[in-house]
Amino acid sequence: MTTRWDELLSAGGRNLRGSAVRELFKILQRPGMISFGGGMPAPESFPCEEVAQACAKVLREQGPVALQYGQTEGYNPLRDYIAEVTMAEQGLYARRENVLILTGGLQAADLLPKVLLDPGEAIVLEEPTFLGALASFSPYRPRYITVPLDAQGMQVERLEEILPKERGVKFIYTIPTFQNPAGCTMSLERRRRLVALADRLGIPILEDDPYAQLRYSSEPLPPLVTLDQEQLGRPAGPGAYEAGNVLYVGSFSKILSPGIRLGWVVGPAPIVAQLARAKQGTDLHTSLLVQMIAYELCRQGFFPAHIARIRELYRRRRDLMVALMQEHFPLEASWVVPDGGLFLWVTLPVGCDSQAILAEAVEERVAFVAGQGFYANGGGENTLRLNFSNASEEQLQQGIARLGKVLRKHVTR
Amino acid sequence: MTTRWDELLSAGGRNLRGSAVRELFKILQRPGMISFGGGMPAPESFPCEEVAQACAKVLREQGPVALQYGQTEGYNPLRDYIAEVTMAEQGLYARRENVLILTGGLQAADLLPKVLLDPGEAIVLEEPTFLGALASFSPYRPRYITVPLDAQGMQVERLEEILPKERGVKFIYTIPTFQNPAGCTMSLERRRRLVALADRLGIPILEDDPYAQLRYSSEPLPPLVTLDQEQLGRPAGPGAYEAGNVLYVGSFSKILSPGIRLGWVVGPAPIVAQLARAKQGTDLHTSLLVQMIAYELCRQGFFPAHIARIRELYRRRRDLMVALMQEHFPLEASWVVPDGGLFLWVTLPVGCDSQAILAEAVEERVAFVAGQGFYANGGGENTLRLNFSNASEEQLQQGIARLGKVLRKHVTR
Repeated sequence: MTTRWDELLSAGGRNLRGSAVRELFKILQRPGMISFGGGMPAPESFPCEEVAQACAKVLREQGPVALQYGQTEGYNPLRDYIAEVTMAEQGLYARRENVLILTGGLQAADLLPKVLLDPGEAIVLEEPTFLGALASFSPYRPRYITVPLDAQGMQVERLEEILPKERGVKFIYTIPTFQNPAGCTMSLERRRRLVALADRLGIPILEDDPYAQLRYSSEPLPPLVTLDQEQLGRPAGPGAYEAGNVLYVGSFSKILSPGIRLGWVVGPAPIVAQLARAKQGTDLHTSLLVQMIAYELCRQGFFPAHIARIRELYRRRRDLMVALMQEHFPLEASWVVPDGGLFLWVTLPVGCDSQAILAEAVEERVAFVAGQGFYANGGGENTLRLNFSNASEEQLQQGIARLGKVLRKHVTR
Repeated sequence: MTTRWDELLSAGGRNLRGSAVRELFKILQRPGMISFGGGMPAPESFPCEEVAQACAKVLREQGPVALQYGQTEGYNPLRDYIAEVTMAEQGLYARRENVLILTGGLQAADLLPKVLLDPGEAIVLEEPTFLGALASFSPYRPRYITVPLDAQGMQVERLEEILPKERGVKFIYTIPTFQNPAGCTMSLERRRRLVALADRLGIPILEDDPYAQLRYSSEPLPPLVTLDQEQLGRPAGPGAYEAGNVLYVGSFSKILSPGIRLGWVVGPAPIVAQLARAKQGTDLHTSLLVQMIAYELCRQGFFPAHIARIRELYRRRRDLMVALMQEHFPLEASWVVPDGGLFLWVTLPVGCDSQAILAEAVEERVAFVAGQGFYANGGGENTLRLNFSNASEEQLQQGIARLGKVLRKHVTR
């Protein structure tokens, strides 16, 4: 009878998201298209020369290590650097055993449900939230509890009401800083309340923080993981920390390169060890060559000046996109200017259909991501996400003018 | 109450294998240890210079592509090369849409149960089988149906009896060529019968073939995927093939470098597309820099001469290990000389305990993998796996002599 793949694949009510993104990726590649979709860094910011030199040095000096199998937890010098430099700069006490190197930060969103979620158990999400994380969570068939956002981030007060009544909640997923897609940043007060709530109920938080270094205005806030550690009492001595409610996810995607696929997760040693066990069955370990290249750049002190350059570039692009939106978009379109990150989130009057707008915009050779995909439980038809990091000034000018024309038509319908 | 990780992680009867492997990895790193554990290539065979040059070229000519996000399916020139050169050499008709690039071949063993297995459904395994694949399968909580091996590979006749009576069997996992750990190769007759059986029952086969190019003696046999295509009728025209029962997994780990993490899966376009959807939620895509380095080496025609060199090196090591085993091992130990791959599989008299032998061997500074871990449903206490690719001639001589001493003590107890 031969394998009936369709039957096999549809059994058990599986719901693999992600086809929309893959379609979009094809649209974005069409010639002449101006893309505000994706979350891509500016390609002209990539340090090609520095990566090539670091690669040559690693292979010359430690080639047989870089090309051999490595341990699942990651390359120890890189783990040490992330614990003792990167996370220490965020106010966190961490050691090597608190760090697992990932094949991109998104891998945490695959590994965490893998080690603790059964079908039908719940994940708390911001609404809207990163659609990539939804694609990671969905195969584990969770139930989603959504909490709305406002300009101060997740409405934690609402969660304080809902959460004690819920059962089978396995973790809370949040992007507190320069949220994707909404661009908002969780206030310090809400951060403290969320961390206290998680601790009171014994529910872990997955804190996704890929844009940490991409701040263009306002003052930095401590990550949830640091507030959690302060609340529980900072550990002393040389060892790894063992207790805590927060898993913090960081990434090299926005400060070095997304194409190399490199991120990390920091958390209490027991759960990090368990995530490593799960990672062993998925990709054994993250490319050691890639890890060693990134470590070489860390060691050289490459990042501070590089990040400052990216920040300046993206700040200009954000400001230009906002100015152009004010000029070209209909008055009925609204947005909040984000203090960092990669995205502007636009809300149109209820009744507008961003899918239909996207179809027309693509005809005008400008693309974005329709908002619906960011809503786990439906909604968001009148929203859209614009990325400002990947387009040149000329593309921003042409693209926002084209998009404004399409939007004006739709708003007045 | 703070997050109780232990409680959370043990809920639902989860069984994440892999801790044994991670312990072993630490043992293997002890100074002075001679290791026949792991499945590591000879580090002196790594083409460090060629990889560095390919990396420099890729970054110089296409840096902004190599460091940017890529599509989940993989880098198209590499997909084309694998379809139209690598798989064509194996007698298979395939096109780009039949190929998904993986972060190491093992990723297929994570993605396939993710898209089609529900807890309690069954996977057919060879007994013994690769413990890495067990680590991948286990989190999806399958039931295992095991089929014993002999010198001709999986005893397909037994499977023909068992399989029609079973329900909820989602796929058959096999390493037909130079099996890990047992070293045996499935005969042509059994290959044909297995492929026919899978087709008759509509049950897919996951064919893991990481050692394909590492043949040291006897004539090559066609992979299952090619026999399946012959049975179903070879497609014509420029398009991808759509039907078939076999997913074939290949790897760059043994012919280039395991540390870069690069493999692929080839199969009917609909299931490959679904695996890509699942991969999107795990690591988005495999490091594009790594893919482009490997493609550059493919394009340059680097592999044929490189593989010939590796083959010659490993053939010598296999032959030396076998000669030394004949000299030093007790008569009661038995093994079959494999025609390729990386492993010699040793069976001791029933009653011997390879875990206890390992503990003593480690004291003598020689390590291997105890056989039990390769048995999904228990057993194999009297077996052990020796890797011959990673040790120098001197290490082989010293290590096998040391191990022989320990074995003789245990066999005569």
